[in-house]
Amino acid sequence: MVRIGILGAGRIGQVHARAISETKGATLVAVSDVFEDAARALAHEYGCDVRTVDEIAEASDVDGVLICTPTDLHADQIEQCARAGKAVFCEKPIDLDIERVKACLSVVEEVGGSLMLGFNRRYDADFNALKGAINAGRIGDVEMVTITSRDPGPPPMDYISRSGGIFKDMTIHDFDVARWMLGEEVETVVAQASVLVDPEIGKAGDFDSINVILRTASGKQAVITNSRRATYGYDQRIEVHGSKGKAEAGNTHEARIEVATGTGFERPPLLDFFMTRYTQAYAAEIAAFVSCVETGAPPPTTGEDGLRALILAEAALTSATEGRAVKTSEFA
Amino acid sequence: MVRIGILGAGRIGQVHARAISETKGATLVAVSDVFEDAARALAHEYGCDVRTVDEIAEASDVDGVLICTPTDLHADQIEQCARAGKAVFCEKPIDLDIERVKACLSVVEEVGGSLMLGFNRRYDADFNALKGAINAGRIGDVEMVTITSRDPGPPPMDYISRSGGIFKDMTIHDFDVARWMLGEEVETVVAQASVLVDPEIGKAGDFDSINVILRTASGKQAVITNSRRATYGYDQRIEVHGSKGKAEAGNTHEARIEVATGTGFERPPLLDFFMTRYTQAYAAEIAAFVSCVETGAPPPTTGEDGLRALILAEAALTSATEGRAVKTSEFA
Amino acid sequence: MVRIGILGAGRIGQVHARAISETKGATLVAVSDVFEDAARALAHEYGCDVRTVDEIAEASDVDGVLICTPTDLHADQIEQCARAGKAVFCEKPIDLDIERVKACLSVVEEVGGSLMLGFNRRYDADFNALKGAINAGRIGDVEMVTITSRDPGPPPMDYISRSGGIFKDMTIHDFDVARWMLGEEVETVVAQASVLVDPEIGKAGDFDSINVILRTASGKQAVITNSRRATYGYDQRIEVHGSKGKAEAGNTHEARIEVATGTGFERPPLLDFFMTRYTQAYAAEIAAFVSCVETGAPPPTTGEDGLRALILAEAALTSATEGRAVKTSEFA
Amino acid sequence: MVRIGILGAGRIGQVHARAISETKGATLVAVSDVFEDAARALAHEYGCDVRTVDEIAEASDVDGVLICTPTDLHADQIEQCARAGKAVFCEKPIDLDIERVKACLSVVEEVGGSLMLGFNRRYDADFNALKGAINAGRIGDVEMVTITSRDPGPPPMDYISRSGGIFKDMTIHDFDVARWMLGEEVETVVAQASVLVDPEIGKAGDFDSINVILRTASGKQAVITNSRRATYGYDQRIEVHGSKGKAEAGNTHEARIEVATGTGFERPPLLDFFMTRYTQAYAAEIAAFVSCVETGAPPPTTGEDGLRALILAEAALTSATEGRAVKTSEFA
Repeated sequence: MVRIGILGAGRIGQVHARAISETKGATLVAVSDVFEDAARALAHEYGCDVRTVDEIAEASDVDGVLICTPTDLHADQIEQCARAGKAVFCEKPIDLDIERVKACLSVVEEVGGSLMLGFNRRYDADFNALKGAINAGRIGDVEMVTITSRDPGPPPMDYISRSGGIFKDMTIHDFDVARWMLGEEVETVVAQASVLVDPEIGKAGDFDSINVILRTASGKQAVITNSRRATYGYDQRIEVHGSKGKAEAGNTHEARIEVATGTGFERPPLLDFFMTRYTQAYAAEIAAFVSCVETGAPPPTTGEDGLRALILAEAALTSATEGRAVKTSEFA
Repeated sequence: MVRIGILGAGRIGQVHARAISETKGATLVAVSDVFEDAARALAHEYGCDVRTVDEIAEASDVDGVLICTPTDLHADQIEQCARAGKAVFCEKPIDLDIERVKACLSVVEEVGGSLMLGFNRRYDADFNALKGAINAGRIGDVEMVTITSRDPGPPPMDYISRSGGIFKDMTIHDFDVARWMLGEEVETVVAQASVLVDPEIGKAGDFDSINVILRTASGKQAVITNSRRATYGYDQRIEVHGSKGKAEAGNTHEARIEVATGTGFERPPLLDFFMTRYTQAYAAEIAAFVSCVETGAPPPTTGEDGLRALILAEAALTSATEGRAVKTSEFA
Repeated sequence: MVRIGILGAGRIGQVHARAISETKGATLVAVSDVFEDAARALAHEYGCDVRTVDEIAEASDVDGVLICTPTDLHADQIEQCARAGKAVFCEKPIDLDIERVKACLSVVEEVGGSLMLGFNRRYDADFNALKGAINAGRIGDVEMVTITSRDPGPPPMDYISRSGGIFKDMTIHDFDVARWMLGEEVETVVAQASVLVDPEIGKAGDFDSINVILRTASGKQAVITNSRRATYGYDQRIEVHGSKGKAEAGNTHEARIEVATGTGFERPPLLDFFMTRYTQAYAAEIAAFVSCVETGAPPPTTGEDGLRALILAEAALTSATEGRAVKTSEFA
Repeated sequence: MVRIGILGAGRIGQVHARAISETKGATLVAVSDVFEDAARALAHEYGCDVRTVDEIAEASDVDGVLICTPTDLHADQIEQCARAGKAVFCEKPIDLDIERVKACLSVVEEVGGSLMLGFNRRYDADFNALKGAINAGRIGDVEMVTITSRDPGPPPMDYISRSGGIFKDMTIHDFDVARWMLGEEVETVVAQASVLVDPEIGKAGDFDSINVILRTASGKQAVITNSRRATYGYDQRIEVHGSKGKAEAGNTHEARIEVATGTGFERPPLLDFFMTRYTQAYAAEIAAFVSCVETGAPPPTTGEDGLRALILAEAALTSATEGRAVKTSEFA
C-alpha cells in the first residue's frame, strides 16, 4: 500500500485526494493546508489526518507527497520532501524562475530523489492513442505539429497577476505536449502575443491571445495557438503531420448527440472545465505516480520536462517582446 | 454524334436538355410538349427544333428519345419510340399498373428495343463509391441494408393525387436502391404506413410516413424509412452491413462549414432540392444513356428494374393495408 | 446510508458491487451466490458478508436487494424480497413468460413493494441528452424512431439456448428504448428475422439478424435493426425524427483520434464490450436505485416497463414466425 | 455578350477556356500561345481564332483578356492590354519583384484600366459560406485565423526553381485568404521555414515546410501552415476564431462514404488535385470576371491584393532568413 500525503487542500488537492481514494494500492494518510478548515474538510471526507507540512515531510508513514500548494512554495517543498526521502509529485510549474528550478532539480538529483511533474495532458487517453499511432509508425517521421488550446474564459485578474503570464501559466502545457509529440528538443522559438479578450489583462502586463512557432535542430516545427476565450467550451486539439500522413486528437463535447432543424445540424458545446475534460487524465496521472512510488520506476513526466517547458515559455515571451527568433540555448 | 429528342419540356425535361448540351458527343435535335410555349422556350435556349411526338418518334435525324412527359403517357410513348427504332430513356415509373408495365416491356423486347429507366440515384457518385466498396469485398457478404429517404416537404396535393401513392412515387427509388445494394431479389415485404405530416394526404388516400422491411430468399434484409417531411433538408442515406463490416454514404450539406458558439457546433442544413442534391447524378445518367446509344451497350437501369421496383411498391402497399407479409411472387 | 444486498456474484453482480462502492450514501452489506467461491471473492473485495438468499431477504440491516441471478430465478426472488419489504432492483427480464411476469408484478403491487428494472440504456448520458432535446421541443412532435443495435459477436451457444431468443434477450433493450423515445404505447408490430451470422443459431431455433417496425395508435413508428455481428464494435445508435427536425445519439469510439494516410482517414473501432460502452450508465443506474430507496421515489424503470418490452418481444417473434402484423393487445 | 481572349493555352488557360464556354453571356474569341499547337488545339475545341498577343491586345472584338502565360510575362502583358483598353484578368503573381508589381499597377491606374487577380480561393463556395458567417456576425469580432494548406506532393524541380520560392508560389494564396479573413492589414510577420520533404528543394534554395504568424495593428493574428507533402490529398482548411465563437471550412473527400471494419472507420482520401478541388471556384472566378467586364464593376480581387500578398511573402521570407519579426512597412 502506497501511503500518500497532500500539501494543499485547494481545488487540485481535492481532485487528487479523490483520485487517491479510487486508486487501488494507495491510501491517503495526511493533508496540510494553511487554511485549517480546508485541510479538515478534506481530511474528514477521506478519513485522513491533518498535519503540518513538516510533519508530512518527516512522517515515517508517508511514502509519497503531492504538492498542490501555490507556485511560490513548490521549489522549497520539493527540496524538503526530497531530502526527507519522499517521492514527490508536484503541480506545474516548479517555479516561475528558471534558475530557481535548476537549483531545485540539482537538490533532487543530489539526494537521489524522485520528482514527477503534473503535466496532466500526458495522461489523457486520446492524446496517448495519438502518440501510440505515431509510435506505431502510422504517419512516418513527424514533421509538423499543430496544437490548439483555448480556455473557455480568462481566469480572475488576481490569478492572472500571480500566474507568471500566459506563456508560463497556460502555454506551458502546450510546450510540454509539443516536445512530447515532436520527439526532439526545440532550438528556436518565435512568438506573437496580443491582448484581444480583456484590456485589463494587458494592463497587468500579460497577453490573452498568442501564437508560437517552435523549431528543432532538424527543422521539425510545432505551432501553438492559445486564447483565453472560447465561447464553445474548452478547446483542446493536437494535429501531427508526418512523412506518411497526419493524425489528430479531437475535442470532447458535452454529449454525443446532434440535432438537425431548419437552421442546421447542431452538436452540443465542448466540456468547458479543465477538470471535467481531463477527469480521466488526472486519475491516470495519480495512478502513474502511485505506481512509480511502488515500483521505483522513473516518473513519465519529470522535473527536467518542467524545466524545458519553462525555458520554452521564457523564450516565447522574449521573442514576443523583442521581435526576434530566440534560441533556447540562451537559457540553458 | 448521338442525336436526341425530348418529349416533355417541363422541369425534368429542362434538366436533361441542359445535361445533353454539356455531354460531349451528344446533341439535342428536337423537343415536343403539349404546351407549345414550354417547348419553344427550351428549343430557343438550346438551339433545337420544336416538333410533335410523332415527328420525333419517326425522325431520321434522332437516335434516342428522352421521355419526360406525365406518367400516364410513358408506356404508349415507350412503345411508339421503340417500334420506330429509337433508343428510349424514360423517367420512372413506366406506369402505375404492373400489367401495363409488363405489356410495355413485352413490346420493347419483341421489337428488340433498348429501354433505359431514369433511376437517377444509381448514377450518384457517392452511392457508386459505396457500391464499389461493397463490390471490392470490403464489408464481406451483404446482410442488412438501411435506407433513409426523407423529402424536405410534401409535394402539392394535386401531385399527390396523381402520384400513385408514396410507395410508387417516392419509395420506388429506394426499392431500386435496395435491390442494387442487396444484390439479390426480394421475396417478402412487410410495411407500415402512417399519416403524420399532413391530414390532407390521408384524405387523398395516401400516406406520408412509412417503413418497409424487404427480405430475400437467403434472408438478407433491407429497411426503408420514408417521410414527406425533413425540416433540415433532403435526407438521403444508405447504410449497408455485411459479414466483415459496414459501409455508408452520407448527406450533402449546403456548405462544408461549421460554426461553434456558446449554444453548440452548427453545420448548415442539407441541400433541400432533389435536382441540386443529384445534379451530378442527372448529368451522369444522361451521359450513360448517350454512351449506350453510341455503343449499343445495354443500359445500366432497365425496364425490368422499373417493373421490379413497382412490384415492391405494390407489395408494400398491400402489406401496409392488409397487415400481412406479402410475397413478391403474388405479382410476378 | 442505504444498505444493499446482492443476489448473484457473477459478471453483472460484480459490476453493480463496484458501483455501490463508488456511490455516496450506499454500502454493500452482503452477497449470496450458489457458487460460494464467487460470493466469497466479491465479499472479500468489498468487505461485506456472504449470506444465503433467505438471509439477505430477511435481514434487518438490508434496505435494498439487487437481483443478478439467472433469469429463471428472478420472479421468485422479486416476490420473496418484495414480501420481505425490501426495495428490489432486478436485471431484465423478469421472466421469459408473460403470464409469470404479470403474476410477479401483482405480488409486488399487492405488498406495496418497489421494483426497479435494469434497463441500463435509460441511464446513458448521451441517450438522456437526446431525450432531453426531445423534451425541450427541439424536434417538435416525435414521428419516427430508428434504433440500430448490433453486438460485436454472438454469445456462446449455451447462452443462446437459455436466452429466450434474440427478441427477448437482445431486442428487449431496444423495445424499451423505442417506448421511451416514442412516448406512446405500441399497438402493432411487424418483424422479419433471419439467420445470417451463424447457422448454429438457426439450429437452436433462434435468429441473429432482425428488423422490427413498431406502430402506435396515432401512427408514430419505430424501426429496430439488430444483428449479432458487428466487426467494428458495439453499434448503439438512436435517431428520432419529429415534426421540426431530427436528433440522434451516436457511437463511442475506442479513442477520439483520426489518422489520415494515402488510403484514407481512419478512426478507431467502437468500444466493443457492453460493460465498457455503458460504464457510466451502469453507475448512474445504481445511483438512481440508491436514491429511490433513500427517498421512496418511484423507480425510473419499472416492472411495468419490463412487462411491456416483453410483450413487444413476444409480438415481434409472433410476427416474424406467422408473417402477419401482430397487435400487442393479443398479449395484454 | 462579353468577348474574351486568352493569352497562354497551357493547363490553366484550358481550365479558363472551358469555364468561358460554360458561362452565359461570355464567348471565347481568340487564343494565343508561343506553342502554336497548343493554341490550335484549344481554338479547335472551343471554336475560336488563333492570334498573336498583339492581335488580341489590339482586337476590336475582344472586351477582356485572360493572362495565363508564365509569370515573367505577366506585368508586360497586363500593361499592354490595359493600355489597349482591355479589361484584364491575370493569374497570380503579377511578378516576383515588388517594385515591378508597383510599376505595373501604376500603369493600370494611369490608364484607368481594370485588373482582376486570379486568387481562385476567394471564389470557393465553402470559403464564401465561411466569410458569410463571419460577416453575419456569428462569431463576433475576428481575433485569430488558422490556415492549413498542404499540397499532395512537391512540384517538379524545374518548376520549383522558377517559382520564386514557397512563400511567393504557394503561401501567397494563404496570405490572400488571411487578409480576407482578418479584414485588416498585416503589420508584422514572423516565419520559420524548413526542408523536410525533399533535400533537392533545399539545394535549390527553397523550403518545403513553413509556418508563418501574421499580426495586424490591432493585434489580430493569423497562422499559416504549409507543407509540400500530404499523403492523404490536398489539405485546405480555414479556421477563424472570434469574440463570440469560431467558424471553419473543411476539406473535400473523394467520396462521401465511410467503411467500418475491425480496423476502424475509414473515409476516402481528399481530392488530390487543385483543379478538381477548386473546380467550382475556377468557374465562379471566371463568371465574376465576365460580370465585371459587363457591368464595369470593380473586380473582387485586385492588383492591390496581389501586391499585398506579395509583400507578405517577401516579409515572411525575410523573417525566416534573418530570424526577426519583419514589418510590412519595410516593403511599402
